[in-house]
Amino acid sequence: MTESPVDVTESPADLVITRCTALVHGDQEEVRFLEDATVVVRNGVIEAVRAGRADDGREAVEHIDAQGGLAMPGLVNCHTHSPMVALRGIAEDVPVEEWFNDLIWPIESNLTPRDVELGARLACAEMIRGGVTCFADHYFSMDTVAAVVADCGLRAHLGEAYFSSQGPRGREKSLEFALRHRDSADGRITTALAPHAPYTVDDTDLAATAELARAHGLPVHIHAAESREQTDNSVARLGRTPIEALERAGLLDTDLLIAHGTGIIERDLPVLRRATGRVAVATAPRGYLKFAWSPTPVRALRDVGIPVGLATDGAASNNSLDVWESMALTALVQKEAEGDPRWLTARQALHHATLQSARAVGLGERIGSLAPGHRADIVLVDLSGPHTQPVHDLAATLVHSARSADVRTTIVDGRVLMRDRELLTLDLPSVVRELEERMPALLDRSHGQRIQDYEG
Amino acid sequence: MTESPVDVTESPADLVITRCTALVHGDQEEVRFLEDATVVVRNGVIEAVRAGRADDGREAVEHIDAQGGLAMPGLVNCHTHSPMVALRGIAEDVPVEEWFNDLIWPIESNLTPRDVELGARLACAEMIRGGVTCFADHYFSMDTVAAVVADCGLRAHLGEAYFSSQGPRGREKSLEFALRHRDSADGRITTALAPHAPYTVDDTDLAATAELARAHGLPVHIHAAESREQTDNSVARLGRTPIEALERAGLLDTDLLIAHGTGIIERDLPVLRRATGRVAVATAPRGYLKFAWSPTPVRALRDVGIPVGLATDGAASNNSLDVWESMALTALVQKEAEGDPRWLTARQALHHATLQSARAVGLGERIGSLAPGHRADIVLVDLSGPHTQPVHDLAATLVHSARSADVRTTIVDGRVLMRDRELLTLDLPSVVRELEERMPALLDRSHGQRIQDYEG
Repeated sequence: MTESPVDVTESPADLVITRCTALVHGDQEEVRFLEDATVVVRNGVIEAVRAGRADDGREAVEHIDAQGGLAMPGLVNCHTHSPMVALRGIAEDVPVEEWFNDLIWPIESNLTPRDVELGARLACAEMIRGGVTCFADHYFSMDTVAAVVADCGLRAHLGEAYFSSQGPRGREKSLEFALRHRDSADGRITTALAPHAPYTVDDTDLAATAELARAHGLPVHIHAAESREQTDNSVARLGRTPIEALERAGLLDTDLLIAHGTGIIERDLPVLRRATGRVAVATAPRGYLKFAWSPTPVRALRDVGIPVGLATDGAASNNSLDVWESMALTALVQKEAEGDPRWLTARQALHHATLQSARAVGLGERIGSLAPGHRADIVLVDLSGPHTQPVHDLAATLVHSARSADVRTTIVDGRVLMRDRELLTLDLPSVVRELEERMPALLDRSHGQRIQDYEG
Repeated sequence: MTESPVDVTESPADLVITRCTALVHGDQEEVRFLEDATVVVRNGVIEAVRAGRADDGREAVEHIDAQGGLAMPGLVNCHTHSPMVALRGIAEDVPVEEWFNDLIWPIESNLTPRDVELGARLACAEMIRGGVTCFADHYFSMDTVAAVVADCGLRAHLGEAYFSSQGPRGREKSLEFALRHRDSADGRITTALAPHAPYTVDDTDLAATAELARAHGLPVHIHAAESREQTDNSVARLGRTPIEALERAGLLDTDLLIAHGTGIIERDLPVLRRATGRVAVATAPRGYLKFAWSPTPVRALRDVGIPVGLATDGAASNNSLDVWESMALTALVQKEAEGDPRWLTARQALHHATLQSARAVGLGERIGSLAPGHRADIVLVDLSGPHTQPVHDLAATLVHSARSADVRTTIVDGRVLMRDRELLTLDLPSVVRELEERMPALLDRSHGQRIQDYEG
């Protein structure tokens, strides 16, 4: 928190938010709430978060009166496949093998760049409405997704997915994408190499990926140890866990984002401990419940110093891109999994949702806290609804009573993308309409093809 | 579905809802969706649900154009303590003993009827906003809650709670309450005897309750087998499970609503099977996760023919009265608990939310389905948001993508209690303001008293 007096010779701030309670972090990273705060934004950056009504906002180019609501860092969706919103509800109540082999991968053979674009637009609309300001995406036709991100104003960490079945061209395309879009969209887009998973990308390709990552200074985003069954199968077939496969390929020496990790086991922990500072895990708890998987071992990962960011995975498994729900479910499911009601408190959940999620996507220095110098990725939450009153413990109110629909305003880089629930950068009805028209062609499985076989 | 032609000599309908998709039940109780439907309401009763635009609503006293949204039976909160919304967030991240003994029961010593009234008003506002049209309440000062229900237009199944520590007067008051308010508020209020639990109400009182229930034709609403630990303690101390204690007291021969039942074990199942048709269980899955309890054994209860209704418990443990969330969590948690992604499908979840919940509160003949002759307790859900598009599987959309905030309109007995998210029968700001003022007195624990000791 800066307390510097306003320099009267300075030009007016671009954006001032007044009358909010601000979620900030203390010296020990603990979540704190600053009442009756003012947030000042200039050039897309948070200039100050002041307690008290130091500034009434009248001088600013844009003024938002938060009316007693909460200002917090925008949520980060640390692992998703945004265009898969087009397939929301298409593969319900089935085990993962059937989900992949009979439904998702056959349908994905039909995907065109236009489908991906419409899906990405719909996904961005959903995320902006749910208070997500940054998402890590791992999919195909990612040039299209990058264009949507540039257009709609969100921040994103993007990777072009590949399988070894595509031959070396898959890996090359992933690299080309990452280099082409790195730090584009005024720095809102960062990129990663995106091998699919150790069960679809062979050891040679994983090792080549690690080498490319080091040579080009790129991070890597991969699915690994998605379920306990995958880990058991990997050990049975290859004598190593998926995490050990990543280590062997040299990927734990890169900046690595591991999606899911519900199959991380005891023997993986010392391996991960050696990679502290470079490796993070993204957890998407809703889909694990749906597939009847155990949760990501958050407590064990905390103990070895691995940040765990929040995610939704794609909407074809999660049914939404609601990171707020992922936050609540992480708190709830982890208590039950550890048999400990004192574990994963509301404040811990908020730490996962803010600092740990920002770190998971390699942006810990730029986003994840309302700190001067950080990018102005801010959401304003309305706490006046009957379901969030009275407020005895603001952290608990946020995690356990508030919902994504309580986000009123979403701001990225100081630009307002949603104001009072109204989307300002996306035309939702036209996207929904065109997607509807394209559905019969997208859902056709009569060709009998699929993009890959699941044998995880 | 009636398909009878409109009788032109008839007076206009009181309410007609047009352009909706209606969630109805087929001959085998299966959930079906009737597209482009019209719902006709007269004298608080559903007169017809017609496919096609048979009626444009212009003749009706009141016409709602649902604009392509979904009409479904209002949700039923089968077990709550509505006034406890005042204590939302007061007792977080603690085990149940500490929750009761150190926080909730000391604070509840301070409760005044005015606190209960304000809490009930806030709770009713939250439930109406969340699409709940009926709730089963189990608390103190219930005359006050009955007055709030009569006033705000909801339907409720109310019981005055008692402990054996109150002496015979507790039981007598519960009976007097049940007789005084039975079928009041134009039939919207039904009542039950409400002994607290087998660990706070002794065998003599339980047996006396069963006798009163039979003598007066009253149902009984009780907490039992709340956790596995309670069951284990009951077996260790008394040689019987809580369910066996209920049977021994004769309570399984009454119309009995059992809250929670997460501690129902194998040996309870034949006992419950003998009580099929009279006994139901209410499940409130969020709080079980918070206390690190296992879930209600829904599949085992299904196998012995016991309906399981959805509930939230009080907001001091659940943090909200969001039955929509209870529906989604029931689907998710039950899959994980059974290790079976095919179990508890979205359609099963909707069956719990509609018919089974209505039966759990003894109202299976009156509410729980949009069937001609049933009371017109209807909610309209907006599915146009980005998080609910596209719709490939409407049941999945409702359970896994939609949220309580998507309920636009809530109707009870044909009366609109919320229209387009606006509460029509409650003044929320004044309730929140007065509750805030009363908080210091309510939260004072300096007296060192508590209303009861938890030794479950």
